[in-house]
Formats: sequence, C-alpha cells, structure tokens
Amino acid sequence: MRWTRNFIPTLRESPQEAEIRSHRLMIRAGLIQKLAGGLYTFLPLGLRSLRKVEKIVREVMNNHGAIEVLLPILQPKEIWTQSGRWNVMRDLMLVAKDRQDRSFVLGPTHEEIITDLVSKRIKSYRDLPKNFYQIQTKFRDEIRPRFGLMRSREFLMKDGYSFDATDETAQKSYWNMVEAYQEIFKRCGFNFIMVEADTGVMGGSLSHEFMVLADTGEDELFVCKGCGYAANRELALRHCVPSFSSASSKYEEVQTPHMKSVEGVSRFLKVSPQQLIKTLIYEMDRKPHAILIRGDVEVNEGKLRRLFKGASVELASEEKVSQVTASPVGFAGPLGLKGIPLVADLSVKGLRDAVTGANKADTHFIHVDLERDCSIDAFQDLGFPKNGDLCGKCKAPFQVLRGIEVGHVFKLGTKYSAILGANYLNEQGTQLPCVMGCYGIGVSRCLAAFVEQNSTENGILWNQALAPFEVLISPLLMEVGEIVEAAEKLYNDLKLKGMDVLLDDRKERPGVKFKDADLIGFPIQVALGQKFLETRSLEVHIRPRQKVEHIPMDSIVSYLEGMIRSL
Amino acid sequence: MRWTRNFIPTLRESPQEAEIRSHRLMIRAGLIQKLAGGLYTFLPLGLRSLRKVEKIVREVMNNHGAIEVLLPILQPKEIWTQSGRWNVMRDLMLVAKDRQDRSFVLGPTHEEIITDLVSKRIKSYRDLPKNFYQIQTKFRDEIRPRFGLMRSREFLMKDGYSFDATDETAQKSYWNMVEAYQEIFKRCGFNFIMVEADTGVMGGSLSHEFMVLADTGEDELFVCKGCGYAANRELALRHCVPSFSSASSKYEEVQTPHMKSVEGVSRFLKVSPQQLIKTLIYEMDRKPHAILIRGDVEVNEGKLRRLFKGASVELASEEKVSQVTASPVGFAGPLGLKGIPLVADLSVKGLRDAVTGANKADTHFIHVDLERDCSIDAFQDLGFPKNGDLCGKCKAPFQVLRGIEVGHVFKLGTKYSAILGANYLNEQGTQLPCVMGCYGIGVSRCLAAFVEQNSTENGILWNQALAPFEVLISPLLMEVGEIVEAAEKLYNDLKLKGMDVLLDDRKERPGVKFKDADLIGFPIQVALGQKFLETRSLEVHIRPRQKVEHIPMDSIVSYLEGMIRSL
Repeated sequence: MRWTRNFIPTLRESPQEAEIRSHRLMIRAGLIQKLAGGLYTFLPLGLRSLRKVEKIVREVMNNHGAIEVLLPILQPKEIWTQSGRWNVMRDLMLVAKDRQDRSFVLGPTHEEIITDLVSKRIKSYRDLPKNFYQIQTKFRDEIRPRFGLMRSREFLMKDGYSFDATDETAQKSYWNMVEAYQEIFKRCGFNFIMVEADTGVMGGSLSHEFMVLADTGEDELFVCKGCGYAANRELALRHCVPSFSSASSKYEEVQTPHMKSVEGVSRFLKVSPQQLIKTLIYEMDRKPHAILIRGDVEVNEGKLRRLFKGASVELASEEKVSQVTASPVGFAGPLGLKGIPLVADLSVKGLRDAVTGANKADTHFIHVDLERDCSIDAFQDLGFPKNGDLCGKCKAPFQVLRGIEVGHVFKLGTKYSAILGANYLNEQGTQLPCVMGCYGIGVSRCLAAFVEQNSTENGILWNQALAPFEVLISPLLMEVGEIVEAAEKLYNDLKLKGMDVLLDDRKERPGVKFKDADLIGFPIQVALGQKFLETRSLEVHIRPRQKVEHIPMDSIVSYLEGMIRSL
Repeated sequence: MRWTRNFIPTLRESPQEAEIRSHRLMIRAGLIQKLAGGLYTFLPLGLRSLRKVEKIVREVMNNHGAIEVLLPILQPKEIWTQSGRWNVMRDLMLVAKDRQDRSFVLGPTHEEIITDLVSKRIKSYRDLPKNFYQIQTKFRDEIRPRFGLMRSREFLMKDGYSFDATDETAQKSYWNMVEAYQEIFKRCGFNFIMVEADTGVMGGSLSHEFMVLADTGEDELFVCKGCGYAANRELALRHCVPSFSSASSKYEEVQTPHMKSVEGVSRFLKVSPQQLIKTLIYEMDRKPHAILIRGDVEVNEGKLRRLFKGASVELASEEKVSQVTASPVGFAGPLGLKGIPLVADLSVKGLRDAVTGANKADTHFIHVDLERDCSIDAFQDLGFPKNGDLCGKCKAPFQVLRGIEVGHVFKLGTKYSAILGANYLNEQGTQLPCVMGCYGIGVSRCLAAFVEQNSTENGILWNQALAPFEVLISPLLMEVGEIVEAAEKLYNDLKLKGMDVLLDDRKERPGVKFKDADLIGFPIQVALGQKFLETRSLEVHIRPRQKVEHIPMDSIVSYLEGMIRSL
C-alpha cells in the first residue's frame, strides 16, 4: 500500500481528553478518530491491526473446535426479562425502541440469545457438546466512557458459549477454552497473566480472567510468589499478617461526640485505623449479622455472598442498624451486641488494644481485646486484599500487579439453560438442561492494551503479529530519481513475496517521515537517503531489537524475509 | 470441516411466515435462524457464504483504490439534525437513549459520520481524492420486515463514500465505483442489470441501481429493447402510446352523483379508465397547478419534483382544492379552470372523447377533446410507467422485469460537505466543499438474492463463489469400514489441496444425506455407496451442470481440482 493512497492522518499534539498513553498514541498515530464520548472510528491502520487480532482469535477458536456464528445485535427485551437479567443489567444497557414501542437491548453480551438458539435447535445428547462463538459489536452504557478503546460504549468482542451434557465434559470445554485463550494472547504478543476471578452477575461456579500487565490497568491483581496462586481483587483469598499489638488493660468507655467515621474516630482518639474495628450490620436473607473488619479494610460483598450461599446479602438500613444496636449508625460494636451472629474478618484476628463502637451514641470502647472481650462466631476471609497481605493458600507474600482485562471465562452451569429451556434428552430419554460455559475476549480492547504495554510517549512498538504493516519503506529524498526507483523496486519485490508493506511516497522531509514512522511504530523501517546514494546500502531499523543495520540492496529481500520470520 | 463437528440444523418443513423461496430455503437449509421479526442469526453455513460475499466486495473495492475504515454504529442525533435528515428519516431509524437521555441513531447509513471525519482530518486538495468504505451492520425500523434477509431490521452493508476536489474527478470516482460494482456482482455470479435510478432522500444528481433479476423482486424495472435504456419505475422516462379514440362531438355535462373516484365514474358512465382524465391540484412552492393524467396512470411525484426544480411539491389540501376548483374534491377538471397552469402528462396527449370533472359537484363532462377544448400549458412525462409504455428515449417497447436491489450508487455533489463543513483548500488557497459520491451494497441481502435466483423449491444451487463449502463428501454406508476410510482419505487429500470441503460423517441413511445435500445445494457432491465397493469409483454430482459422473478413486483429486477451476 502507498501512503498517499491510504489515509494516515497523524497528529503532532495529543488530544486533551486522553488520559492514558495508549489513548493518546492511537489518536496521534491515526489509528482511531473520536466521533463522540466512547465512540470511535477505526481509521485504516487501526482497522488493519484490529483485523489481525480478529484473525488470531478466529484461527485459534476454530482450531479448538469452536463454531462461528453471528447473532443479532438487537435483542428483544422480553428474553432479558425471562432470564431475570433485565433488572440487574438495565443501567448498563443501551435500549432502542421500534415504531411499535417495543424495546430492544443493544447486546452487551449474548447468553440469552445463544441459549434461545440452542433451545430451538438442539434436542439430543448426540448433538452435544457444541461450542459457539462470534465476533460481534457490543454496547455498554458506561457511566464514564474513557481511555479510548479501553472503556468505550461500542466495542468489538469475541464471545463464545459452550453447551455440554454433563458437568464433567463442561469442565473439559472450560479448560479447552482456557488453553485457547493462552494461545491467543501469546500469539498477540502480550505479557499477561491468568487470574482466578469472581463470577459476578454472570453467575456460575468457576471463572478466570486474562490480564495484560500495565501500570495503568484498572484491575488490581494479587499474585503469590510462593505457590503461584493469582486472583483479582474481588476474589483473592488472603491471609492477614496478624496484629502484634501488646496485651491491653481492661476495655473502657470513652466519649467520641459525633465521631462516626473511621477517619474521624482515629484522628480524635489518636490511634491508627489499623487499631479500629468496624462493625457493619448486614442482612443475609433478611437476618441481621454483625461483620467485624479492621478500619483500613473494605468488606468484599462477593465473599459475603459466597459465604452465605444463595442468600440475599444487603447492608442493613439505618433504621435496622439503630434497632439492632440500640444506637445511632456509626457506634455499633461487638461488645454487648445480643442475639445476632458476630462474623469477623481475618484482619481483626488477634487484635488487642483495639477501638470499637459501644452501641451507644457518641461513645466508643478503647483497649478492647477482641477474643478476650467477646465471643466471635467465626473468623472468615471477608475483606478485599491490601498490599502487604499474604496469600490465602500458602501465606507467602502477595505481589500486587495492575492489569487490563482482555479475556474472561466462566463456567456457568445450568443457570441460563434451565430458565430458557436449553434442554437435551439423554440416552435414557430424560430431559436435562445443558451445562454451559461462556468465554469473552475484548477484541478492540486488545489493541489498546497492546499499545499501552508496548509504547513510549513518542510512539508505539508494534510486533509482527499486530502491526498495521510489517515493513515501512521510506525514500527520504523524493526528488532523487535513483532513490525513488530503488524504493519502488523494493516495494514491488516485497509485495510479490506476500509481505505486508507500506511505501511512504509522500513528498515530505526526512524528519517528518522518521517522526511518523516512530509514532506509528512499524516493526521494520527501511530508509533510503544520502547514504544509499553513496553506498547502495539501505538503513534498516529493527524496532523490536532496537537496532539499525545497513544492508546492501542486492540482499535486502532475503534479509527482510529472515528477519520477519525471526521476530 | 466434519458435519458432526459443525452445526447444520436442516428442517423438513418450511416456516409458516416465509413468503418467498429464498426465505424458506435459507431457514430450512440451516443458514439462518429467526430471533424475532426482521432479526436473524447467521448459522455457520450462512455465515460462511456471507463471508464469501464480503471477501469479494473487499477485494474489488481495494483493487479500485477504496480505503477500508469502520465507523461507529451509534451516531449522535445532533449530527442528523445538522444535516437536516433527522426529520426526513426519523421514522425509518432506530434510536437508543443513554443514561443522560441523549439520543443515538443506530446508523442506517453513514453520510453524516464520514463527512464529519473528512471535515476534521482533510484540509487540502493534496489530500484528495479519497474513497472510503466500510462493511458494517446497519439498522432500519422497517414497517413490515419480511422475506428473511431481504428486508430485515438489522443487516450487513458495504457503504462507501468518495470525496473529490472537482465535479469532473467526482464523475470519475462515480464511474470507477460503477465498474467495481459490475465486477463484484459478476464475481458473485448474479444475473443482474444496472438501471438508472432516482436520487430520492439521498439527494444528488446521478444514480444507478444494481438489480438481481427475480420474479419475486420488489422492484419493477423498465428495459428498452431498442436503445438499451434501463431504469427503475421511479425514474423511467416513458413515451405513451397515443390514444386512438375517434373525434368526438362537442363536450357535454352529465350528472355523476357521489362519483368521485376513477373506478366509480368509469363504472357509472360505462367508459374505461383510459378514457378518464384525472385532474389533481398540486402546490409547487405553494402555488397551485393542475396536473392532468389518464385515469389508469399514477402521478410520479419524483418527476414533478425534477420538473419544478428545487420547489416543494405537495398535493393540495381538500380546502385548497375546493377553493381553486370552486367544487368539492373529486370533480376537478381542466375546462373552465381559471388562473392556474394546466400541466398534462404524456398519457393524455391526443385524448379525445374523454371524461373530465366539471368543477361542479356531482358533475362530469363527456366527449372532451382535450387539445380542442382547453389550452394546455405543457405536456410532460409525469406518470409512472406501465406495461405497454414505450421507451422515452427511442420509443421502442419497454420490457418490464422484476429485480432485487443489491447495489445503489449516487453522485451526491456538495449537499453534505457544504452543511457539515467538509471543505478543502484548492491550489489558489480558496476554501471549497468536497464533491461527494456514495455507494452501497446490501451484503446480507446479496445472499438472499442469490438464493432467490438460484434455487428450486427442493434446494439451493450454489455456485463456487458463494457456496458455504465447495465440495461435500458423503460416505453413504457408515458401517462399512472401507467406505469410511476412503471418504476420510479423500477428505484429507482435498483439505491438503486447500479445498473448501465438508465431510458428512453423520450416521444417517443415504436418503437423509442426499436430501440434505440437495437442500443445501453444495455445487459438488461426492457419494460413496454400494457402487464404490463394486467398482472403486465415486459418484460425483456436479449440480451447476446437472450431471452425475463416476470417477475412479485414483483420479478423483485431480478431477475435482479441474472441475472447481472450470465451474
């Protein structure tokens, strides 16, 4: 492709709203163009790289036995009502109405639709297992779309769904997809890790996320240096470093007027938040429970939900708290709290000389020794991990990393198949719901994640796999016939070899050509300037190796062929 | 691909709602599956054929210098207000609202968005010409979605947009796309014609449609056997066969109580509708005009609009008609109508012994000789053509055909660029709006059109270009090891040759396998049954040639290679 016949509008200046490097670079390098908040056009170079991600995804999915389909973007509201997710996900969904005032969800995901398809077209165990996928545009009404393709309102996803007869084969399907994902992200050239994850609103029993490591990543990951356990912040099983505070005298009551927050109390009493015990009243299936947790740790409701299996888990209303603790909100404490279970997070295990609420307005207890002074029903892992926590599996220190989620797999079980009637007849003629899994890759987000991970503020560092073009040829002196001819010849030779090559045939100064080449970051740049006229050798920049070589004209094609294979 | 690892849910019965053959067959052959009215899932085989159309479109567009981009589906309402099309197209558009209650159009077309992009990123004549295209999902809120993919609410389109500095080069860009479209539809294997078309709400000065010929086509096409002129019903310039009625006596008044319609009057007076002259009062730029047209011909408002260039064209209100004709609606006539221009359609030229309204309630004139009895300001082509009309260019008879529109090209001029600021600086430094063209292909509709044109009620007749698989191998006796082995060997040999091959490895009876093969209609089917055991030869069905051949096992691969090349 010739530069002048393409459309590569590079920019010198960064767009103001771009907060992270990948966003700045993708706009400056002419890969994407903003239409409105969270809505981007893929310009020719961005689209080329997007298609390369797509191609890798498609090849690996096909090789792992998945079958490609294409499901509609528009989904009747009724099917979301039926699955029970209309209320749960309504706020995140864009919805269009037709001329009959019927509502259609703009698919954020397709569990309902694929399950409906299977319910209509699969009948027997002989038709199973099946693993479907599609590469389709998805929509989310983000509260705050940002970071370019990272969190946009319209994005490209690969979503896949497996249907099995038994839990055992569903397990196999799950791990087959995990293997596929490892291969996909490896072929894309990511530095990534797989972490255990919460199943959240998707439901199910097992889940992993694939995270591209980057300092600007929105997700916090906890990786154990000892046993290799890795999980996201929602799930990470933690062990808390026990408190080493010394034994304390008998607890006593102190006045803490209007001090309801951890911050206020610790400032007022001049103790660190680590010495405070928060007492939160939760209702599990409408029965109040007191949850005790250290002042600097946040309650993880996902963990509460898993602990109280199947129960509804809700923070009690102010009214309920006052009723249970006989005091205003902000002064609850475990001592003297009668008739409700006390469940403590690991962070308060062994805590002595602590501060708690006194179940009395404007009053706290100090010098509390939790296990001495009250009877805890259970110690559980109920908090979000913090830097410094230990691995919940082996007690070695956690390493805290940041990542960009590019893939997510779920073992769903029969949640959707049971509701939407995706049943099959087994060999004995009994009707059973299919056991499902679902598997997503953020295809357009992969591009942003790649750029975030492989760039400097001056430009992107593409690899061979995802580069919009593998080789850029830059004739630097367009007024010199010899240079233009040699560049044209090389361009045609490389095209004949099937290489992905771009010829910078613009009548621009060498500085402009080099700057654009650095900004876009083609892996290989071949420059023909003054030196070429003197020595007949071409200057080859191999960006992934950070080196420059000078190669004679007559061996350049075979040199480049070898280089591309080796990169 | 193996049949059992794929998902090909064929049906014996036709779905009730499917009115045309392509719709019935695409569902029965397991190419598509209905989700809701006008919304279809592409099943694996349908998707394979869809991708083949896409590939042809992409290759030809790229070869013709067009540049691929991908524009967002969601488009802010504001840009449609700015272009002036929000009101014109509102009824056809699906619109979603976000959490801030902002409206987003689900793109039915992308003139606004591409023009906005160009306005931001193209500045100089040196950046022109540019020709962009995308292959993107489109949405229309059809009043009555039907015919499967033919008229659906969500569909795949190739839309393209050219930007030129001058009208002359814009003309070149237009004809370059016409050439590309001819090549695309030829490579798809269509029997199609190109017709001149109206520019309609799109605007512009020149337009052609590409029509796949089929009896069930929604469009009526007028093709001249003499000069080759071809146009759609909206545009076709016609010459009317002059009336041969004999000279009549003086016109006279007759009572026609309550007879306001052509049908009523002609029945009541026992004359044919061809002897009636309808008089319709139109307002052009709010000035009333009387339009005279034969009772059996419809007024073509598009032609009126072109005749009264730039004027608003509206049928007058009942009130206005009464005022102008001094009579109730239904009794207007040219005789004695004072102070407004009389414009007559060609169909009434030379009409004698005719019936007209008398501008008086319940009264008509008979024995009217139009040119004798009143003074017509102009005779013009103002009606829709009818079977039997002559070509407006050479007066030879029109052939009337039916077609399915698969492509449409428009020379738009500066309508959008001027409003949305897509300007460039010319060599003299003057700012001018780009001259645009736009070009669409209904990619998913192409599939339906192909099936409509190439099928019988028993099945589809795919060509090599669009078939989901080129070759089907059917081992008919799955319990015979020799047959299964030979089929497997052939399957692997053909795959190694890069052929697009499906192996029917189902444990089904030969009848079932043949029926499915006929229904889906793979161009080549290789069957291995009893005869194979006896003779070592394979039964090869070449569907496009309607023949069956028996080919020995040892020459089958080279035979098939040759056959595929020649089809």
